[in-house]
Amino acid sequence: MAGNTFGRLFKLTSFGESHGKGIGGILEGVEPGLQLDMEFIQNELDRRRPGQSKITSPRDEKDQVEFLSGVFEGKATGTPLAFAIWNKDQQSGDYDNLKNVYRPSHADYTYDAKYGLRDHRGGGRSSARETIARVVAGAIAKLMLRKLGITITGFTSQVGEVVLQAIPDDLSTIEATPVRCPDPETAARMIDLIEKVGEDKDSVGGVVTCVIKNAPAGLGDPVFDKLHATLGHAMLSINAVKGFEYGMGFGASAMRGSQHNDEFYADHGKISTKTNRSGGVQGGISNGEEILFRVAFKPVATIMKDQNTVDKSGREVVMKARGRHDPCVVPRAVPIVEAMAAMVIADAVLMNKTYK
Amino acid sequence: MAGNTFGRLFKLTSFGESHGKGIGGILEGVEPGLQLDMEFIQNELDRRRPGQSKITSPRDEKDQVEFLSGVFEGKATGTPLAFAIWNKDQQSGDYDNLKNVYRPSHADYTYDAKYGLRDHRGGGRSSARETIARVVAGAIAKLMLRKLGITITGFTSQVGEVVLQAIPDDLSTIEATPVRCPDPETAARMIDLIEKVGEDKDSVGGVVTCVIKNAPAGLGDPVFDKLHATLGHAMLSINAVKGFEYGMGFGASAMRGSQHNDEFYADHGKISTKTNRSGGVQGGISNGEEILFRVAFKPVATIMKDQNTVDKSGREVVMKARGRHDPCVVPRAVPIVEAMAAMVIADAVLMNKTYK
Amino acid sequence: MAGNTFGRLFKLTSFGESHGKGIGGILEGVEPGLQLDMEFIQNELDRRRPGQSKITSPRDEKDQVEFLSGVFEGKATGTPLAFAIWNKDQQSGDYDNLKNVYRPSHADYTYDAKYGLRDHRGGGRSSARETIARVVAGAIAKLMLRKLGITITGFTSQVGEVVLQAIPDDLSTIEATPVRCPDPETAARMIDLIEKVGEDKDSVGGVVTCVIKNAPAGLGDPVFDKLHATLGHAMLSINAVKGFEYGMGFGASAMRGSQHNDEFYADHGKISTKTNRSGGVQGGISNGEEILFRVAFKPVATIMKDQNTVDKSGREVVMKARGRHDPCVVPRAVPIVEAMAAMVIADAVLMNKTYK
Amino acid sequence: MAGNTFGRLFKLTSFGESHGKGIGGILEGVEPGLQLDMEFIQNELDRRRPGQSKITSPRDEKDQVEFLSGVFEGKATGTPLAFAIWNKDQQSGDYDNLKNVYRPSHADYTYDAKYGLRDHRGGGRSSARETIARVVAGAIAKLMLRKLGITITGFTSQVGEVVLQAIPDDLSTIEATPVRCPDPETAARMIDLIEKVGEDKDSVGGVVTCVIKNAPAGLGDPVFDKLHATLGHAMLSINAVKGFEYGMGFGASAMRGSQHNDEFYADHGKISTKTNRSGGVQGGISNGEEILFRVAFKPVATIMKDQNTVDKSGREVVMKARGRHDPCVVPRAVPIVEAMAAMVIADAVLMNKTYK
Repeated sequence: MAGNTFGRLFKLTSFGESHGKGIGGILEGVEPGLQLDMEFIQNELDRRRPGQSKITSPRDEKDQVEFLSGVFEGKATGTPLAFAIWNKDQQSGDYDNLKNVYRPSHADYTYDAKYGLRDHRGGGRSSARETIARVVAGAIAKLMLRKLGITITGFTSQVGEVVLQAIPDDLSTIEATPVRCPDPETAARMIDLIEKVGEDKDSVGGVVTCVIKNAPAGLGDPVFDKLHATLGHAMLSINAVKGFEYGMGFGASAMRGSQHNDEFYADHGKISTKTNRSGGVQGGISNGEEILFRVAFKPVATIMKDQNTVDKSGREVVMKARGRHDPCVVPRAVPIVEAMAAMVIADAVLMNKTYK
Repeated sequence: MAGNTFGRLFKLTSFGESHGKGIGGILEGVEPGLQLDMEFIQNELDRRRPGQSKITSPRDEKDQVEFLSGVFEGKATGTPLAFAIWNKDQQSGDYDNLKNVYRPSHADYTYDAKYGLRDHRGGGRSSARETIARVVAGAIAKLMLRKLGITITGFTSQVGEVVLQAIPDDLSTIEATPVRCPDPETAARMIDLIEKVGEDKDSVGGVVTCVIKNAPAGLGDPVFDKLHATLGHAMLSINAVKGFEYGMGFGASAMRGSQHNDEFYADHGKISTKTNRSGGVQGGISNGEEILFRVAFKPVATIMKDQNTVDKSGREVVMKARGRHDPCVVPRAVPIVEAMAAMVIADAVLMNKTYK
Repeated sequence: MAGNTFGRLFKLTSFGESHGKGIGGILEGVEPGLQLDMEFIQNELDRRRPGQSKITSPRDEKDQVEFLSGVFEGKATGTPLAFAIWNKDQQSGDYDNLKNVYRPSHADYTYDAKYGLRDHRGGGRSSARETIARVVAGAIAKLMLRKLGITITGFTSQVGEVVLQAIPDDLSTIEATPVRCPDPETAARMIDLIEKVGEDKDSVGGVVTCVIKNAPAGLGDPVFDKLHATLGHAMLSINAVKGFEYGMGFGASAMRGSQHNDEFYADHGKISTKTNRSGGVQGGISNGEEILFRVAFKPVATIMKDQNTVDKSGREVVMKARGRHDPCVVPRAVPIVEAMAAMVIADAVLMNKTYK
Repeated sequence: MAGNTFGRLFKLTSFGESHGKGIGGILEGVEPGLQLDMEFIQNELDRRRPGQSKITSPRDEKDQVEFLSGVFEGKATGTPLAFAIWNKDQQSGDYDNLKNVYRPSHADYTYDAKYGLRDHRGGGRSSARETIARVVAGAIAKLMLRKLGITITGFTSQVGEVVLQAIPDDLSTIEATPVRCPDPETAARMIDLIEKVGEDKDSVGGVVTCVIKNAPAGLGDPVFDKLHATLGHAMLSINAVKGFEYGMGFGASAMRGSQHNDEFYADHGKISTKTNRSGGVQGGISNGEEILFRVAFKPVATIMKDQNTVDKSGREVVMKARGRHDPCVVPRAVPIVEAMAAMVIADAVLMNKTYK
């Protein structure tokens, strides 16, 4: 109810603050008997970790997951799978200067407006550190989907004004650069831009594109829980996301029906579409084609420049820039986008079992 | 669970097919004692109705709501408010030709893939006629919000390549043209385009922009049910929607943090932001500024041209165009966008009461 | 959320008041393709109907269900199955005398306390007429369970001080008497008692026992949604129910563990228990034995005697007895108990599909 | 969905197994700003702890709660309140003998039937140790209710054949004896019986009665979530519970309406009932009188006698009694009953705020 749970049958309820004891969650709907591939799960966490290169924040916060329940002899038992990633270096003294100040475009003011109090240390519950729990749950969803041959692949398709012009067929190069763009030349330009923005003590936004392959036709529920509506909800719940589109997205608004419609054809009885402007979803239900969507991220609010703002009492103050921060979180958001997508698809797969 | 319910506390569960007995729903969370302004509710339904002008489909399907429960002496009682809009002119014979044919970019194929059978008449459950139930629920949500001074106003900001360049301060002219664009000159160009597309036997997409005024700070729930994530889910669940963005949306991806951040200031103790690039939501919670979002619609799949497709058995067929259809549903989508937004805000308002 | 929905995957959301337009609901989770046996559904409704004999209220309110959606060519489509039973004879003028009076042990006072207003006609939403929607949903659940060989049989095991001493093996005689007690001699004594209570212008309580056969092992969810907890919730939600017990129930409180434990044995590899004191559920999950539970009903509050009470303003008044009412609703509650049990089991069966 | 969550707005999602790392949960709906009285919470845990006297199991397992999130400077922040009670002394080697054996009337067989595998150590998820999480959540619910003057008091009203004949007015003596029966003479007889049962290497059942005082009129939701149905669900979800009744309960089945109805009267405008056979709930909604219910517990399945059973492969085996166990858990169940009742009432209080 209060926004800490995602999913219906494959369901994560998360907890934790940036500078509390840790981040974690309770995961339900994991297939009983599923072998939990700990190396894979840890690798997903590592993909999200800051400090992977000079273009990301150099803090070395090793995020290791500890499972607290629901696992026995390496397998999921069907009971709730609880886990935590303990915060190592809490240093909350660092944040005393933020106790009463409302950082521009952060959640400080809105949390106070909602709850009347807040844990101000590093953003508390509103910190992007919360997404660790999503990555753990998403990794387990991926393990379930892997058995069905379903793959989920995200990549950086835009950083600031640098745009990947076409999705290459070969997505195997995504992890080759820290910026996670599959085209090496575009990746290089993105890295240049991020470095320049960092030197400017500023931040920059971008876009993550995601492709889901081998999803069967029939996933998603009509009317209010259309597959793309649930995907959209999932993506818009990630910190700093400002937009979601699938298939032709906003571009479809300028098209004609005769241009946009996907003709069906049949090959040895298998029905497919000649084009995939629909992005793999029609009437809210997957049609067996690739599911394609894009997620827009704003430039993160934390910048290394001084900013004007107010404190809790309404007094105008200048907020001094401190610490070290990523100028662009888009590459690190790739595994988070994939994780949320994996959770949505795993949930839809479970839901579909109830129709048979 | 199965996608027929929207909302947590202000909650609509809907039913009905295009050519069944009717469309309706059960609405919970309506304030006990609320005076149901039937004229207002009917007017909202009329705004959605086709046949309002020569640019929309000329079918005269008067949609009148009948309340089946939950109302006593004109007031909501707090018990579930059930309602139906009966289908007048079912003429299902018209649709026999579609029994086995999969219309391109419709939900025919995906429904069969999901359920193994479907009501093929006019799209059945996947028809946009389903949105009538949303308009009724949204109208009642608006009645609740009106008492709090919250207003929700949608308008057409793009049709095909015709784009409204700036949101005018005065939105009172929206209903002045059938295209529901507040700028008369742009509206005229949109109407011209829609007429031309109709003559071409084609359809065209567009964008609806929506502004929510006077929403208090504190609405929305952190993490998974951020206010904009719930709004996005709501909008993406509307037929033909392909994208959702709020605040600067996809445009934010090309911005720098120093350009995008909204500085706070205080005026007589009231804290506000100087700019509103955030679109009224920060950290997933409303900040008291105007909430601004945009919804992309594809061109509707039904066009008056013959199209290649396949039937149920995988045989290739040519689908002949028949009947009369709107070349552009975007203007009619305006009240649906508003309705879903009103439901989201009413639900968030109810949810917030539990924190006090 | 507001108490109008029952079930997770097999889910009924109901609406309607005693003297409004009708009673109905939206049912989700019905197996796509299920043939709806209308005769069976109507027969279940007839079993619930008053006026079946001289020991029940002689009003002739034919309750016929109309399906509004989700059915196509006689089969469930997987989309929400809406239905209504229209109120024929509303005669709400009859109830003007109850407008401001709080009937003893009815819901008049508590509804006013909760909502600030109420539909006073015949109890409005609190009337047992609401249970019609449960019987429709339960009948459809039974159709799903019938395919799995699962049967649900309720019967009257107590009326006032007349108690059925042992459950007979043969339950086929339940419908032989209007009191629905399988033992003819006990049934005769129950009927005598009900007639006598009717002559005394009074009402009398009783107990319904229910047996579920052929339920597979593995139904129910641990911890908070144990199978018996969900059955208990279901039964306690029926009007006039005051208690629920399963297996040895309250009798177990006086037993020793060595008396109560059910020993396991195996026959050709099939594991069973020698006794069934557990009532077919262990650790909240069905064990493959017969599921057995009992439901206690109070004497209905409406009696044909004058009663002291107060009106809305707190003035003491004498409420005059009027109309005709069942002195004992227990026999009519049998199909309602069965319906709720069928819904619980159908939901557990769907839920279990997600574990495979 | 999978039975690990209780409540709608005041909502606990729990995790943990008997011999895993710990037991814990995520609690939502806690009033932002609520001072968490840690001493009170710990005291509630201590009340549940075994080893409080010679009539309970002498294991000394100190259960201390650690809060992982949602608390800042001693106050609840409105974000999810996660907590864990770490298992100290796991000694899982002790349980190797139970790996393949199905203990009579335990959940071993049914868990295997449901999930295909299980954590066999000490019952795993099915162990009553799981109730620790409920006690923590219930203690916090009590802190919220205390501010409203609502009190919840449970006590032992039956152990085996020893029955407390009348509820004394003074309940302050409940904690005076380890058996938690308010009448000293009955308590002494209960203790004698439990000791004798222990010497017999057997176990014995009992009944917990609970009284909720000062609950306002208007709590609970009509139809499916009647207050007593939710209380019943809560109680039946506690390990070893076999029955629930409220007000006159099963006794009402033998009564006449004229005996059972509660007459209303008014005193200085305040409407009350002269008697309270309804147990404080009418039509599923609290009426402002004391809420009274009773919960039946079976004798626990673990006894110190050898028992015949089967193993996983269906082979007949004799299960040797081992270790030390409570002959009667009813006194220790008192705080668990109170905790679940507190959660139900806190949830109903939050829900009611949404109607205002």
